[in-house]
Amino acid sequence: MTDLKKFIRDIPDFPRPGILFRDITPLLADAAALAEAVDELARPFMGRHIDVVAAVEARGFIFGSAVARALGAGFVPIRKKGKLPYQTESVCYGLEYGQDTVEVHSDAIKPGTRVLMVDDLLATGGTMAAACKLIEKLGGQIAGLTFLIELSILNGRKQIEQYPIHSVIYIKS
Amino acid sequence: MTDLKKFIRDIPDFPRPGILFRDITPLLADAAALAEAVDELARPFMGRHIDVVAAVEARGFIFGSAVARALGAGFVPIRKKGKLPYQTESVCYGLEYGQDTVEVHSDAIKPGTRVLMVDDLLATGGTMAAACKLIEKLGGQIAGLTFLIELSILNGRKQIEQYPIHSVIYIKS
Repeated sequence: MTDLKKFIRDIPDFPRPGILFRDITPLLADAAALAEAVDELARPFMGRHIDVVAAVEARGFIFGSAVARALGAGFVPIRKKGKLPYQTESVCYGLEYGQDTVEVHSDAIKPGTRVLMVDDLLATGGTMAAACKLIEKLGGQIAGLTFLIELSILNGRKQIEQYPIHSVIYIKS
Repeated sequence: MTDLKKFIRDIPDFPRPGILFRDITPLLADAAALAEAVDELARPFMGRHIDVVAAVEARGFIFGSAVARALGAGFVPIRKKGKLPYQTESVCYGLEYGQDTVEVHSDAIKPGTRVLMVDDLLATGGTMAAACKLIEKLGGQIAGLTFLIELSILNGRKQIEQYPIHSVIYIKS
């Protein structure tokens, strides 16, 4: 088993001073690491009857569809405001400064659809909490959340603690 | 074999009046259609020694990583200006109005790396031509391009005619 952590590159002061960015592109570029990351994201949810995987653009799409394929599920893209062409449901949420909106096609989730949420990173958890609310607004059932990296220090987990959460890599500091 | 075309939904006047948008979200949401789309995108390049798959955000990411996983290749994200955290190479290209820029990490492609380009849609081909130029600027070799949908009427193929091109679904009008 590969040590996936060694493929994560730390970039100081991106996107702004004081932020340490966790760059997953070295992991993505390595075929074996990518394959293992996809398998590890999917593993706890194999055989758990996942209808669709949902993920928020843009980085969430990278693992979302690959995990969907691994689980034999469909894929539902969640996008920022105005990007989806059909009728949408939306949820606004607060950011550090200002607010943002996530949208999904209204017909993408039916009542009772079992949804696995996928993202590369669990940081503050704000976007993911909004995305879960969005799925539930349409009657979907959050079967779980799976992240490549969890930044434990930011305690994003508390915003989504009502759901089963799986993280492949924990970063503690 | 599923008729993938029936999962494509036409949305008139999106993103602006006069544009007929081809909405692939019904295809993505259907587990069998998604699996078949990924397999069909990858099929001609099986055993052709693809080192990495590259795709342009955001919709390109949806199939890019899944095709990479299917081929046992790595994945290289190509992004719009300012989104990638490390040193980048970039290419500017003209749009109908104004211009845009695609970027990739400078260390993502090494001389001789064999790259398969993936996208959901071949329309005018402008963004894809710029993305290919970007890969070649770093010494990468374009092994081919694979699209879910080709809008033949826009003749985007002429912008990238020097490469092997595969399209899963042709839409003629």
